[in-house]
Amino acid sequence: MRLVSITDIAKKLGISASTVSRALKDHPDISNETKRRVKKLAKDSKYSPNPISQSLKSNRTTNIGVIIPEIAHDSFAKAISGIEEIAYQTGYTTLVCQSNENYEREVVNSNMLLKQRVAGIIVSISQDTMKSDHFRNLIDYHMPLVFFDRACDDIKANKVVIDDAKSAFHAAIYLLERGYNKIAHFAGPKELGICQRRLEGYRAALKKSGISINDQLIRFGGMSEEDGYKSMDGLIREKNLPDAILAVNDPVAIGAFQRIKEEGLNIPNDIGLVGFSNNRITSLVDPPLTTVNQPFYDMGKKSAEILIRIIRDGIESVGTSTFTLEAELIIRGSTK
Amino acid sequence: MRLVSITDIAKKLGISASTVSRALKDHPDISNETKRRVKKLAKDSKYSPNPISQSLKSNRTTNIGVIIPEIAHDSFAKAISGIEEIAYQTGYTTLVCQSNENYEREVVNSNMLLKQRVAGIIVSISQDTMKSDHFRNLIDYHMPLVFFDRACDDIKANKVVIDDAKSAFHAAIYLLERGYNKIAHFAGPKELGICQRRLEGYRAALKKSGISINDQLIRFGGMSEEDGYKSMDGLIREKNLPDAILAVNDPVAIGAFQRIKEEGLNIPNDIGLVGFSNNRITSLVDPPLTTVNQPFYDMGKKSAEILIRIIRDGIESVGTSTFTLEAELIIRGSTK
Repeated sequence: MRLVSITDIAKKLGISASTVSRALKDHPDISNETKRRVKKLAKDSKYSPNPISQSLKSNRTTNIGVIIPEIAHDSFAKAISGIEEIAYQTGYTTLVCQSNENYEREVVNSNMLLKQRVAGIIVSISQDTMKSDHFRNLIDYHMPLVFFDRACDDIKANKVVIDDAKSAFHAAIYLLERGYNKIAHFAGPKELGICQRRLEGYRAALKKSGISINDQLIRFGGMSEEDGYKSMDGLIREKNLPDAILAVNDPVAIGAFQRIKEEGLNIPNDIGLVGFSNNRITSLVDPPLTTVNQPFYDMGKKSAEILIRIIRDGIESVGTSTFTLEAELIIRGSTK
Repeated sequence: MRLVSITDIAKKLGISASTVSRALKDHPDISNETKRRVKKLAKDSKYSPNPISQSLKSNRTTNIGVIIPEIAHDSFAKAISGIEEIAYQTGYTTLVCQSNENYEREVVNSNMLLKQRVAGIIVSISQDTMKSDHFRNLIDYHMPLVFFDRACDDIKANKVVIDDAKSAFHAAIYLLERGYNKIAHFAGPKELGICQRRLEGYRAALKKSGISINDQLIRFGGMSEEDGYKSMDGLIREKNLPDAILAVNDPVAIGAFQRIKEEGLNIPNDIGLVGFSNNRITSLVDPPLTTVNQPFYDMGKKSAEILIRIIRDGIESVGTSTFTLEAELIIRGSTK
């Protein structure tokens, strides 16, 4: 017999799963009438609120494993908070591992979580992950799996992302509209899907504005401050200064920011600068950074919601989709 | 038969454990002569480098559990990097849980890690942890346990800390020497040991300088930016402006920083500001913050080294001590 899930109850009553969950817990925000209807249906359909009953069935724990590139990265920390919010509401505990942007560690973490019999795994891949056998292995073991932000393009799984190409396109168009026309792109690793798509958006914006692509202004590297610093340093040493930079993420932008300031150049007048993620730090530096706001907290929540649905209802019933959340450009002082 | 540990080999040869570990791995920094001596003794004494053999003995995994208040907190992220550095070198994997500064979650995490049969646990307690039964329970189960930064004062275990009272004392003395004499202290929660000791240091500095303590200038609260913002807002609304603030940590300092700037006051001329931790962000704000540098990366490394020694050699052989690491005041633009 397939167990009835919160989602089933929600669908039958035409309300959201979180309303059902809160109604079952007598949350004060939920009306008494809704509570009554939810509880009646839960009772009638023999709904069991305890995930342990199901984990026993599958011989798995009630822990959710999370593998992220770096815990110190503000974006991933926000995603973890979103994941934990949902996990805690639904009786799961969260175990976090970091790959340190390293493929081998990601494989170790992935195998370890499998052995630890976690109920499901949420992943954002490392910057040097080019093989996906470890994820295929998880799927072979029927381990519920959700990717967010940095997904493995060749693995069929649920993915929670933003439209990276479109976001980068809009950011570059904004720079062009503000009068910048020699725009560099600090692009991250060539192999990472999100970086490829951001680069694609950058190229599309220049093309649309009739500006030819200058390959010298596209700098590949890693995803850290150090990488941004190095890329900027390269342009300065080559005496090939752009009038604006679109960075692949905020750490890279902050690294560039520091090198620009060291050089005594003015942001935004000598060089305009746009980041990507809306990390906390971007609003505190002077001038504050224009950046693409990626809803990492919501991405974490959404990933956990989908994962728990897969754990409870099975992947066959949930299916595999890509969920694209909205990202928007936040305009601050680092652009004219 | 008790297994020979790296520490045993190190002692016998009069070299450090990390030299032994690196010698066994043919690390290029180690001389061939040392490698030869280490390998010979390892072979003769039947040293087994694989922690799995020992985890099988004790029926525990080769995972190290870490419970910290907040993953997004730069200090704890640094500590995790230090822990992982050592764990990775010695064949352990790290599982991180956050308590979200919440006692109940800390208990859930602690029990869960015990059930997951981790090999040992490293903890920095939440700001509202006032009971310690969950840690006593771990000790009853002979779970290796090390505290860092925020330790449980009434639990006998290994602790890796800084001298909080002395560090706060020196920071307050520095402010007094720079001509500030109406110094507020944003003190964190009353119950947390590190906060009590920092407050103690602040009081001692004022007392030494013959300044009477003004209780209105000591503001208790949490450990977050929001708390710092609120404390500053309180002083502004009470029209009781200090000429300097010593904050219990950097997030609290950054919260105060924002409220001071909103008010149009100048840092450091109207109000001097000193943080505590040396989070990344403190060097990037304008003016950059004077702050106490806490060696979180080293605290993490030290905690992991001790934990692994306990896992391998037993707590009886390691004993329980408090390790006090050096902290120093880093002087930047937020003080005159």
